[in-house]
Amino acid sequence: MNIAVDAMGGDNAPLEIVKGTVMYAEENGDTDITLIGDEKKIAECASELGKEMPKNVKVVHTDIFVTMEDDPMVVMKEKNQSSMAIGLKMLKDAEVDAFVSAGSTGALHAGSTLIVRKIKGIRRSAIATVIPFASPVLMLDSGANPTVTSEILVQWALLGSAYAKKILGIENPRVGLLNNGTEEHKGTEVVSGAYALLRERNDVNFVGNIESKTLPFSPCDVLITDGFTGNITLKLIEGMGKFMFSKLKDIFTANLASKLSYLAVKKQLKGLKNSFDASEYGGAPLLGLLKPVIKAHGSSKAKDIKNAIKGAKSYALAKISEDIALAISKE
Amino acid sequence: MNIAVDAMGGDNAPLEIVKGTVMYAEENGDTDITLIGDEKKIAECASELGKEMPKNVKVVHTDIFVTMEDDPMVVMKEKNQSSMAIGLKMLKDAEVDAFVSAGSTGALHAGSTLIVRKIKGIRRSAIATVIPFASPVLMLDSGANPTVTSEILVQWALLGSAYAKKILGIENPRVGLLNNGTEEHKGTEVVSGAYALLRERNDVNFVGNIESKTLPFSPCDVLITDGFTGNITLKLIEGMGKFMFSKLKDIFTANLASKLSYLAVKKQLKGLKNSFDASEYGGAPLLGLLKPVIKAHGSSKAKDIKNAIKGAKSYALAKISEDIALAISKE
Repeated sequence: MNIAVDAMGGDNAPLEIVKGTVMYAEENGDTDITLIGDEKKIAECASELGKEMPKNVKVVHTDIFVTMEDDPMVVMKEKNQSSMAIGLKMLKDAEVDAFVSAGSTGALHAGSTLIVRKIKGIRRSAIATVIPFASPVLMLDSGANPTVTSEILVQWALLGSAYAKKILGIENPRVGLLNNGTEEHKGTEVVSGAYALLRERNDVNFVGNIESKTLPFSPCDVLITDGFTGNITLKLIEGMGKFMFSKLKDIFTANLASKLSYLAVKKQLKGLKNSFDASEYGGAPLLGLLKPVIKAHGSSKAKDIKNAIKGAKSYALAKISEDIALAISKE
Repeated sequence: MNIAVDAMGGDNAPLEIVKGTVMYAEENGDTDITLIGDEKKIAECASELGKEMPKNVKVVHTDIFVTMEDDPMVVMKEKNQSSMAIGLKMLKDAEVDAFVSAGSTGALHAGSTLIVRKIKGIRRSAIATVIPFASPVLMLDSGANPTVTSEILVQWALLGSAYAKKILGIENPRVGLLNNGTEEHKGTEVVSGAYALLRERNDVNFVGNIESKTLPFSPCDVLITDGFTGNITLKLIEGMGKFMFSKLKDIFTANLASKLSYLAVKKQLKGLKNSFDASEYGGAPLLGLLKPVIKAHGSSKAKDIKNAIKGAKSYALAKISEDIALAISKE
């Protein structure tokens, strides 16, 4: 097992990426890591951490990298020697078994589609995110595809089910469709069309339309939506969490009595705050590709990178692409 | 000033509607209320409340009413003698100055468009909701129009600005476009098209794309979005609030120490919970119609109905339809 990691992607690259990679490599001697990026900078990071680079980490050098300002198509054109492009090509050529990047989502999605390629029959690959609610909800798409068709949503139901079953260990994942009401005629034509198609399938455990007010109580294991609505949903959950905790902070720091009362519930409140931390779930998989690509959050710290590598390994071991290819070929 | 109220719409009709109407009428002797519904049931409600019907409340009898299960077009057809249809027709015929209903949103929207009619030039009327964040954010559309065009979104920016200025008292309302990123090219074609049009207007204080993670911190006064995304946004805020407070309840009831600590912050926590209560803002106005129609929440209690009547009066007094007609006629 060899996992490639983009050392140059994300807000905290390369230091946190190198740190997370080293953490993972030290604990998992049986897994090789290919760290792609500026050799000199990576070495500086390692010495800053006071670490020898573990033997199972190999560095592939490039001093080109994709930035957040780059057009997503740049990976294929001017920057086809960037850390992201090299990683995707190594994955395509079976030199590695999975690829992790915290770089630009748009570039990673476009590059993956064009270099790693989609499973035959899959119309669009999607970015899936685990939302850490009452029980985890795998939502796709998280933002790669603002516009979709009913057929694309149905394919994503298959992709999400396969991932939830094999990677999240959910036996018969309940698949819901995010909608503005529970009735079958609700939503746009695309969404009501997907409802009609999903209801007819016996290979998806479809539980119907999901209203967002029930979402935090985990009414389904897999939530299907377009990338526009999905992205707004994801960011609103993040924003509401921040808002509530900033309000709680105001309340608990108001006076001596409230400060004292905080001590009795401090641990539990921190636990609640941490329960909103999606990093434990190992990054966001791109689903529908022939091989495993994992998007780590742009603000990833070492722990997030370590978990994303762990997620990439599970994804690679599960070989879900083959299951999906089989399901799609039956269409 | 005469305001018509649908006594038969909503989960708690007619009792809470009658109660809220009586509360308002007793406090506002200068305003006439026309309560439309089953005369006998309304009288029973009044006696259940131990109240005489105030002199400024007149009852218009009908024993037909629109239910949540009815097709939205029913108001125009089989149920054109329902409490909702009668109220809308009285408004159209200038027998009353505004109409309040807690009944089916779809029926009220369809009925208003067909009976009260839209301002000339307005393509679609929208339901606007005040979200009680750091400062109030007026969001439209809240669910009436799942599918829109760029031009419709631009018209809603005008409608929302006029309402925020005249009714919410915001001098130069900041108008934002809900999107999955802040960059101008972001979103669906409809949304990026609206961005391009809004940027060119000097009659809208356009502050650009708004990401949902910043929404609770009130980055704008008026938020424009399609009814599908708007409905999901609104219900997710509701759901996240419920989820957080249910978690807090678990934390504070866990043991004696946490129960005691609750006493120090009880008042502030209740205040925070109440700050999520949109009922203070007087129902959701339908914007773009020739005359004021207010949708009260389906689960409205007496206080909500009272505030919705108050909102309807402000809406009627502000005569914003004329301002909007003028702005649109300049196109």
